[in-house]
Amino acid sequence: IETKLPKVGTTIFSVMSHLAVQHRAVNLGQGFPDFEPPQPLRDALSRAMANGLNQYAPGIGTAALREQIALKTGRLYGYEVSADSEVTVTSGATEALFAAIAAVVRAGDEVIVFDPAYDSYEPAIDLQGARAVHIPLTVPSFSIDWQRVRDAITPKTRMILINSPHNPSGAVLSAADLDELAAIVRDTSIVVLSDEVYEHIVYDGAAHQSVLRHPELAARSIVVSSFGKTYHCTGWKVGYAVAPAKLSAEFRKVHQYLTFCTFHPAQAAFAEFLASTPEHYLELPAFYEVKRDRFRKLLAPSRLKLLDVPGGYFQLVDYSAIRDEDDIAFCEWLVKEGGVAAIPLTPFYDKAPGTRLVRLCFAKSDATMDAAAERLCKL
Amino acid sequence: IETKLPKVGTTIFSVMSHLAVQHRAVNLGQGFPDFEPPQPLRDALSRAMANGLNQYAPGIGTAALREQIALKTGRLYGYEVSADSEVTVTSGATEALFAAIAAVVRAGDEVIVFDPAYDSYEPAIDLQGARAVHIPLTVPSFSIDWQRVRDAITPKTRMILINSPHNPSGAVLSAADLDELAAIVRDTSIVVLSDEVYEHIVYDGAAHQSVLRHPELAARSIVVSSFGKTYHCTGWKVGYAVAPAKLSAEFRKVHQYLTFCTFHPAQAAFAEFLASTPEHYLELPAFYEVKRDRFRKLLAPSRLKLLDVPGGYFQLVDYSAIRDEDDIAFCEWLVKEGGVAAIPLTPFYDKAPGTRLVRLCFAKSDATMDAAAERLCKL
Ligand SMILES: CSCCC(=O)C(=O)O
Ligand SMILES: CSCCC(=O)C(=O)O
Repeated sequence: IETKLPKVGTTIFSVMSHLAVQHRAVNLGQGFPDFEPPQPLRDALSRAMANGLNQYAPGIGTAALREQIALKTGRLYGYEVSADSEVTVTSGATEALFAAIAAVVRAGDEVIVFDPAYDSYEPAIDLQGARAVHIPLTVPSFSIDWQRVRDAITPKTRMILINSPHNPSGAVLSAADLDELAAIVRDTSIVVLSDEVYEHIVYDGAAHQSVLRHPELAARSIVVSSFGKTYHCTGWKVGYAVAPAKLSAEFRKVHQYLTFCTFHPAQAAFAEFLASTPEHYLELPAFYEVKRDRFRKLLAPSRLKLLDVPGGYFQLVDYSAIRDEDDIAFCEWLVKEGGVAAIPLTPFYDKAPGTRLVRLCFAKSDATMDAAAERLCKL
Repeated sequence: IETKLPKVGTTIFSVMSHLAVQHRAVNLGQGFPDFEPPQPLRDALSRAMANGLNQYAPGIGTAALREQIALKTGRLYGYEVSADSEVTVTSGATEALFAAIAAVVRAGDEVIVFDPAYDSYEPAIDLQGARAVHIPLTVPSFSIDWQRVRDAITPKTRMILINSPHNPSGAVLSAADLDELAAIVRDTSIVVLSDEVYEHIVYDGAAHQSVLRHPELAARSIVVSSFGKTYHCTGWKVGYAVAPAKLSAEFRKVHQYLTFCTFHPAQAAFAEFLASTPEHYLELPAFYEVKRDRFRKLLAPSRLKLLDVPGGYFQLVDYSAIRDEDDIAFCEWLVKEGGVAAIPLTPFYDKAPGTRLVRLCFAKSDATMDAAAERLCKL
């Protein structure tokens, strides 16, 4: 059998997690927190099982959970959406991203993505017989040069995929960025796909500029988020997509044949938890800001150069003072010889620019962080 | 936005479940059991959450669960598979079916499906730019006319999709059927996709003829199953695919970008439960055979004609003595006027043959069954 995805191997996250175990390294690679989901949330899940919510949930998600998502969207972003026709629960953000691309993008289409880009975007585009058009972000701010976007638009451009807070850099889009984007897609049929899984992790008092704050953009966007990063349960795989009714209808057609529905007891648990603690996520930026600042302080004596972290839970570091090699070689050396697993940026690029940057996850207990920092400061 | 799936609406299962609620009908439509997953399984899931298994599972599934699946395959079907390279855990069988089709089938290919066919097959094929070639099963036995299959093979045939026990009819393939299939695909590059989600529900002392019992076929097949039907937890969405290493590698490439991984605590729970109660499923045929026989006895005085049920948990009934209309019209009438939700067969067909058959689910408590039978006997 000839492969349909010649460019694809095992995801870098799986590879590095595997190497971390093999070499007993401190794992700051794959992005998952050392913390546990709130006890009331876990209790609610157990209760849902006891209460017999063990058969299929509605394919689009339970009414109660969709209602909570719609309430949050209104409250936080001032954008009212219909729980019935504009919110769909998915088996994680990954499924939502794939379903959005599969529903909208056709063979021969072009999709603009910004490099470094999360590694699931391009294979999903490739599988539609479409083409990813890669625009590099401006380093080291990882900001979008909108003139390059304007220059890249063709009659085949079907979708622009944005991601803020950005993985791997933590860069965030501003309100002005959204205005630029709106001006570019105005009077076209381009759909915006906005990956906002780190929406609740934005630092220094800034507000996340969700596409949903921008009604003109929201009217043509599929906004994807998930509960994994917000409630410390990346392994629960409950995500969602918010989109205008017509886009949601197409999204749902694909979703229903991708997974049909999502683990029912978790949906009941999130609905209950969000109803009783609707603004729990407000604690998150302060929680992670302490982590970020602590991690940066620990690394200050090291020979790593720390880039700014406006959002997310990743720290990019420049290792050029330590070793003169590409980031994949450096990560291999680091996990074996340095005892720390990191993520190279090359797999996030179509054409890697040769920056000497790797990603470290700081969503970790103080003990994990201390152990990693001790090793990193020895390099 | 123009739809990529012009033939697709909301699945008939969602539509009928919705109508059942609306008309307070007894719901024998969508196939889910009235029963609860074993208490030890639910306890194990709660324990997994308490033990901190709340972050990403390995994308291919936890080692412990893949090991249990491999052990079962060896024990039950006499076919040894590698947990490392041949077993992949998915977010339900639906995801596994989609991933298998997306990994193997290309634009312009043909996939042979047997009608009536589960409704997710064709949209997954269509989304690859491929074409489903529909071969009707012989009614009322719902058996495969292998000469028709031979006649349908072309150089473009990339996959043959089989399903035993069959949804909606309950028909099962025999060892002779597998020999016929093996002879047809021998010396071709055709991949077999075998949907075996009802593998543990086969009646009258018969043994399920898994493709995995047939080493020649197994070497070119992707076999999909799930825990939902076996452990009364259709809403938990844990499924898996077993395939030779090369096919599994392609399957995993797609899977990792469809959902990345599956709800972690349930994987831990199934691994624990299967290790301690590896042959729990042996009770299932007897359990459902009692249900099947009871349901048939209750319906004996009705004007419905009952077809044979060799497997699965659905009873097909011929309603032609009651009303002279197509099956969709009959199901609409039945849910509104008769107070029972059923599933018409037309949505399972490319070209519905105009049979007067509908599907009733008997995976129900005696009380539900009694209430439904009382209504059905009044028609
Ligand atoms: C789905 S595994 C990768 C987790 C993640 O989002 C990351 O590490 O970037
Ligand atoms: C995924 S909803 C449909 C459930 C089912 O398999 C059926 O009713 O046939």
